[in-house]
Amino acid sequence: MSVLVVGSMAFDAIETPFGKSNKIVGGAATYIAWSASNFTRPVQLISVVGGDFPREELDMLQARGGQLEGVQVKKDQKSFFWSGRYHMDMNTRDTLETQLNVLGNFEPVVPETYQDTDILMLGNLSPAVQLSVIEQLKKRPKLVVLDTMNFWMETAMGDLEKVLKKVDILMVNDSEARQLSAQYSLVRAAKEIMKMGPKYLVIKKGEHGALLFSKDHVFFAPALPIDEVFDPTGAGDTFAGGFVGYLDNTGDFSFEGMKSAIIIGSAMASFCVEKFGTTRLRELTRQNIDERIQQFIELVNFDIALV
Amino acid sequence: MSVLVVGSMAFDAIETPFGKSNKIVGGAATYIAWSASNFTRPVQLISVVGGDFPREELDMLQARGGQLEGVQVKKDQKSFFWSGRYHMDMNTRDTLETQLNVLGNFEPVVPETYQDTDILMLGNLSPAVQLSVIEQLKKRPKLVVLDTMNFWMETAMGDLEKVLKKVDILMVNDSEARQLSAQYSLVRAAKEIMKMGPKYLVIKKGEHGALLFSKDHVFFAPALPIDEVFDPTGAGDTFAGGFVGYLDNTGDFSFEGMKSAIIIGSAMASFCVEKFGTTRLRELTRQNIDERIQQFIELVNFDIALV
Repeated sequence: MSVLVVGSMAFDAIETPFGKSNKIVGGAATYIAWSASNFTRPVQLISVVGGDFPREELDMLQARGGQLEGVQVKKDQKSFFWSGRYHMDMNTRDTLETQLNVLGNFEPVVPETYQDTDILMLGNLSPAVQLSVIEQLKKRPKLVVLDTMNFWMETAMGDLEKVLKKVDILMVNDSEARQLSAQYSLVRAAKEIMKMGPKYLVIKKGEHGALLFSKDHVFFAPALPIDEVFDPTGAGDTFAGGFVGYLDNTGDFSFEGMKSAIIIGSAMASFCVEKFGTTRLRELTRQNIDERIQQFIELVNFDIALV
Repeated sequence: MSVLVVGSMAFDAIETPFGKSNKIVGGAATYIAWSASNFTRPVQLISVVGGDFPREELDMLQARGGQLEGVQVKKDQKSFFWSGRYHMDMNTRDTLETQLNVLGNFEPVVPETYQDTDILMLGNLSPAVQLSVIEQLKKRPKLVVLDTMNFWMETAMGDLEKVLKKVDILMVNDSEARQLSAQYSLVRAAKEIMKMGPKYLVIKKGEHGALLFSKDHVFFAPALPIDEVFDPTGAGDTFAGGFVGYLDNTGDFSFEGMKSAIIIGSAMASFCVEKFGTTRLRELTRQNIDERIQQFIELVNFDIALV
């Protein structure tokens, strides 16, 4: 099995109440790939970077099972750059600077070797780019998962609607689900969004966990209560990476299978926020992950003696 | 086994984005008793009402297993009255009016027949009143559970500290836990609060569920995703009622036992918010409750095939 990941590979500069990072490597595809590679390989990447992107970063991803034929390197241009500052609650942030650079005119090309992929993970990017990848695939993947954000709802809703019709699972956060559906209740939001195309909806609620909806079922995964969220950047992408990586590993795309995948995604996200950027994701061992999953089981597991 | 509940019995007038209630019967002890009586009887009440409080309300509670010897009826005075307006998110509200009336000089008296109670549930009231009840009990109950609110932290912190030293479990919402501990992280807040006396802490997060902390363990119970929260008034008290009612039923006060009780509390609270005031609580059947608990099991139950 294999996962094809489309997304940014970029530089971030992050300020939190706990500290400030230098310009560090980030981007949706980076987080998704580091996370997914714990569960499945190869992780086929489609992205674009500038000449300033460190070669050793690409080498490290390759050593982790990343396949890089779809990563365009534009030597004369600069990589996408984002800087932001998180507020005390870590759920809200201000963007300080965005430099689109190579992302400004990104035209993804799907290499021939990616054509047989089982799962397509469309990380947050312009819906036009996401659509182009879908259309270049000669055979529809078994599962197409989409991440997007409020920015695209406001600036490219027409394209986004087209993409939504072609995906199986949409992943958004709670405020984006509300914006997309014009419904405050998340249950009602889910019903509206599933009319737009996706058969499943994952609503990420940050420190409040995540919900998985299908037409007939709902599942809830908590976030692990931790002493301190150090840096939430990339947590959603890390969640997505664990989710698709695990699904690709098991091949079980039923609602039951997705429930487990949501827990895996939550466990991976709980690591991501412990240090700046992808630092924590790079240190993880199999044993770290197994222990964390055990913590999630203990966190929500109960027996009711009905009385 | 028996539960002794201390709290207000009162009138509320409620405005939500969905409607406006008349002056209806509310109060912490009312909600706790209606909820707990599904799992254990008698529910011994300590409260105070005015001559305006409907006799049939007291009769109905008695028919549900409420024991009313500890409820003072002050014929010449008026019952406590609160009116408030909820905002769209239903997590925040403005108090429009508070009339203390009989609560202004309430001196609780513990009847002799309540002396052997197993669980003492101190609903949200002035810490001085809560302390008086604890001190009147000749034998310490097996379990003492305390609810309180930010108002008492601001106006009676000295008394509240004394009460905290005498209880096993504190129940507060997330903002109250942060205020009491001066910690933003709920994990750190829990550690600080458990230094103040309680061995267990329940943090209620409304639509985001509830956390149970002990020194060494943490458990999370989700709130049921529902189409619409119609009226959140009394949800916390209903949660507390389900929690202590179930614990009194099983007699299992271990962490494992409390986990189940938290799920029961969450299930009961999910009914409470479906209609104004105690309306929904009065209609419930055994089957309604069993089905709702089954929904909670399905909501969080998962199997992970570790890979």
